[in-house]
Amino acid sequence: MTNGRTGRRRGNPDTREQILEAARHAFAEEGFERTTIRRIAQDAEVDPALVHHYFGSKDQLLLASIDSPFDPGEVLPGIIEGGVDGVGERLVRAFLGVWDGPGGKRGVVLLRSAVAQPLLVRLVREFFVSRILKTAVKELGLDIDKGAFRATLVASQLLGLAMARYVLKLEPLAGADQEAVVAMLAPTIQRYLTEALPENAPG
Amino acid sequence: MTNGRTGRRRGNPDTREQILEAARHAFAEEGFERTTIRRIAQDAEVDPALVHHYFGSKDQLLLASIDSPFDPGEVLPGIIEGGVDGVGERLVRAFLGVWDGPGGKRGVVLLRSAVAQPLLVRLVREFFVSRILKTAVKELGLDIDKGAFRATLVASQLLGLAMARYVLKLEPLAGADQEAVVAMLAPTIQRYLTEALPENAPG
Repeated sequence: MTNGRTGRRRGNPDTREQILEAARHAFAEEGFERTTIRRIAQDAEVDPALVHHYFGSKDQLLLASIDSPFDPGEVLPGIIEGGVDGVGERLVRAFLGVWDGPGGKRGVVLLRSAVAQPLLVRLVREFFVSRILKTAVKELGLDIDKGAFRATLVASQLLGLAMARYVLKLEPLAGADQEAVVAMLAPTIQRYLTEALPENAPG
Repeated sequence: MTNGRTGRRRGNPDTREQILEAARHAFAEEGFERTTIRRIAQDAEVDPALVHHYFGSKDQLLLASIDSPFDPGEVLPGIIEGGVDGVGERLVRAFLGVWDGPGGKRGVVLLRSAVAQPLLVRLVREFFVSRILKTAVKELGLDIDKGAFRATLVASQLLGLAMARYVLKLEPLAGADQEAVVAMLAPTIQRYLTEALPENAPG
């Protein structure tokens, strides 16, 4: 079996699953930042080089361990490129592309689990919000002081879209044309990222 | 024990719990619209008048059976009164009032369950979205044709706010001043309710 993205052999499925299992435990116990590949390799009783060989970076190991519907490292550059102009539209369109695509079902599973399992909540928070969204805000050249508030506002609308359209399947939003959703939500995301914040905004 | 809202005696706790249990089953099986008080009374082996005596309307029985954090019948008139002008702001403020208040914990429990239990999903959908939000859209005098799409767009942002601020507790949104959240979210809700929809909008 080969990995579609890199063409690299996936190797022994048992070893691979052993590493994923160790990764799930370590990430859940220590969070994303504090977990090291070395520790995961130790727990899985393999060489750290093998972990890198199978999964690449720590980011990618986390994404594999939670069966993430997408790899932010692949999606984000296309959203950030082009800068602040139209970023809301590009973000909503990319989000719908992932969730309306084959990864959507895994997204629903992940969201369901995140709501039920506090340890997974922490991971989602630490990885998707702190790392990915805040990095994106920074790379867009937006004010970093208030960037975290902006990132969580964006997260609130995207989480809600996932809940309403894919988990609860609220009609007619669930069946609405992608472009109709983009037309309504893009200005919201754009505003959360760029509009002047009130004086009492945190950060 | 008295019911804080009406001052009415709650009566025998066993009978009350028996009715709630029957209601939960009936609502889950039949959905909200098709369930009758008569059927619930029959299942609980009590007189229908007793169900009305304990819980009032079918709406209130549903709200009690899912331990709803709030009664839309109490909150909505204040939001709708005053018409379309400023309705986004009143809705966000009322929403935060409920969730930041003592009912917030029950809201988190309800949202967690709604994600995990398909039957509860259907109830939440049928009651909160179809009945409450769509009625509100109608009472605001907005175009009814597209009202359902507007209602689910509003639901997406409010669900996402609940997820981000109260379930996943994403900081700094989770700890942000109510008024900072109102300032950022009110224009979103206002826009979903009133801005011209794209041509390909469903409905």
